[in-house]
Amino acid sequence: MLVNGKAGNLISIRDRGLLYGDGVFRTLRVEQGQPLHWPLHYQKIQHDCNALGIACPDYARLSEELGGLLADHPDGVFKLIVTRGQATRGYAPVHHVTPVHLWDVAPMPEYPASWALQGVTLALCELRLAQQPRLAGIKHLNRLENVLAAAEIAGLGDPVAEGLLLDADENVIEGTRSNVFLISKGRLITPDLARCGVAGVQRDRVMAYAGKIGMAVEVRDVKLDELRTADEVFLSNSVFSLWPVSRFEQRQWTDFDYALRIRAGLAGETNG
Amino acid sequence: MLVNGKAGNLISIRDRGLLYGDGVFRTLRVEQGQPLHWPLHYQKIQHDCNALGIACPDYARLSEELGGLLADHPDGVFKLIVTRGQATRGYAPVHHVTPVHLWDVAPMPEYPASWALQGVTLALCELRLAQQPRLAGIKHLNRLENVLAAAEIAGLGDPVAEGLLLDADENVIEGTRSNVFLISKGRLITPDLARCGVAGVQRDRVMAYAGKIGMAVEVRDVKLDELRTADEVFLSNSVFSLWPVSRFEQRQWTDFDYALRIRAGLAGETNG
Repeated sequence: MLVNGKAGNLISIRDRGLLYGDGVFRTLRVEQGQPLHWPLHYQKIQHDCNALGIACPDYARLSEELGGLLADHPDGVFKLIVTRGQATRGYAPVHHVTPVHLWDVAPMPEYPASWALQGVTLALCELRLAQQPRLAGIKHLNRLENVLAAAEIAGLGDPVAEGLLLDADENVIEGTRSNVFLISKGRLITPDLARCGVAGVQRDRVMAYAGKIGMAVEVRDVKLDELRTADEVFLSNSVFSLWPVSRFEQRQWTDFDYALRIRAGLAGETNG
Repeated sequence: MLVNGKAGNLISIRDRGLLYGDGVFRTLRVEQGQPLHWPLHYQKIQHDCNALGIACPDYARLSEELGGLLADHPDGVFKLIVTRGQATRGYAPVHHVTPVHLWDVAPMPEYPASWALQGVTLALCELRLAQQPRLAGIKHLNRLENVLAAAEIAGLGDPVAEGLLLDADENVIEGTRSNVFLISKGRLITPDLARCGVAGVQRDRVMAYAGKIGMAVEVRDVKLDELRTADEVFLSNSVFSLWPVSRFEQRQWTDFDYALRIRAGLAGETNG
């Protein structure tokens, strides 16, 4: 673990990341000494820092720190956090405060191998995501909604791999830790994240790949009925890449042609 | 500063308070060696812990820690944070994790003395609070909305003491760091916090005192027009107690009879 580039696993109790969730993060996979799509993750965290007015550490510095961690951790899940830094008094950010950045490393989660090929069960969360356009899309540290939603799903037991989140207007938004896609008549459809949700790196990659193979890509509001009647549904994130959905409520899917083609296509792309 | 009852000012970068804002807090004033209304603050933090499924440290333990800090800090603002504790992997809470609790101390902010007696200028924030009934009322660590709102107000300059927050349906909810009250025809009116906002200890005290002196108390939805045309408007929190509002947009108020009577009444109550 690194704190501001130095070995360490502690931060100040006055860090605004703790006090207010005033920061952003990214989770990326490292495989055989290679961080997957690190430049895309950097673009995203830089975008999110800008959205909150936090000065993002520069690419060269973070890349060097990341490189230094790879020797000891050639495989795993790396987490990068950037907070606005230590608090003075009150909610308002103060411009002269230096942001704090951290790296943490965890082992790759041991998901059943079948999930990537035969699909997963998705369950609807009771919690509805609040709509906050000022924070929508940003992977910030205010994640209590995800905590409550994940707790719901954990309470259902093992067969359910992910929880589906709707917003207060019953729009499909995302999974608790993933983005969601529908395939309908050969088109790729994914929810608009203008009011809530987290825009993942893998979401961009899925859309780009679908475009590359000639699929129509639609980013727009999606209702639950459209998901229930889609030809395929799948989930994505940077750790598990892509999981087809084999079951949601009474609906079952056994044909994952598009999902598996996109998954294979993403795996075959040059790392960058 | 105390971390889990021991002198310290650092926490783990794996604390869920940092990673997800998965925790709650309270801010209380200490005056001449006396923590003001500590039992009420404890009730609130215990309630908020319960709402999130966090095991709240018990009253005796926290009281003892607080007592130990008073000798060195007889005057100031004390902050108590309780987080769900250190993370295992993923958003879902794990039941065997021990919560972490922290105390921090800051000097009392130096507000102009006139604000309590001659009132403050209130300005409308552009940000609208998102509606999340599952988190409404709770003083949790997901405070990015407050950060963005406070940044707006800080950008306006000094004469503005507080920012007023509406929700997405244009209901008046609260200040960026305070609760808001209206006086209309001798009644006390304060916004319902069932969908967003933080329910402060001082808010409860104001309502209880108003009831005690025979005022009708209404907790309900409030629109901006009602605030603009109220006989009095005032703000409350546990640090500054109560500030009358002397100006909001084009409206000016010079009569603070109820506000000052309630402020004096609260100051005269037994500490407890």
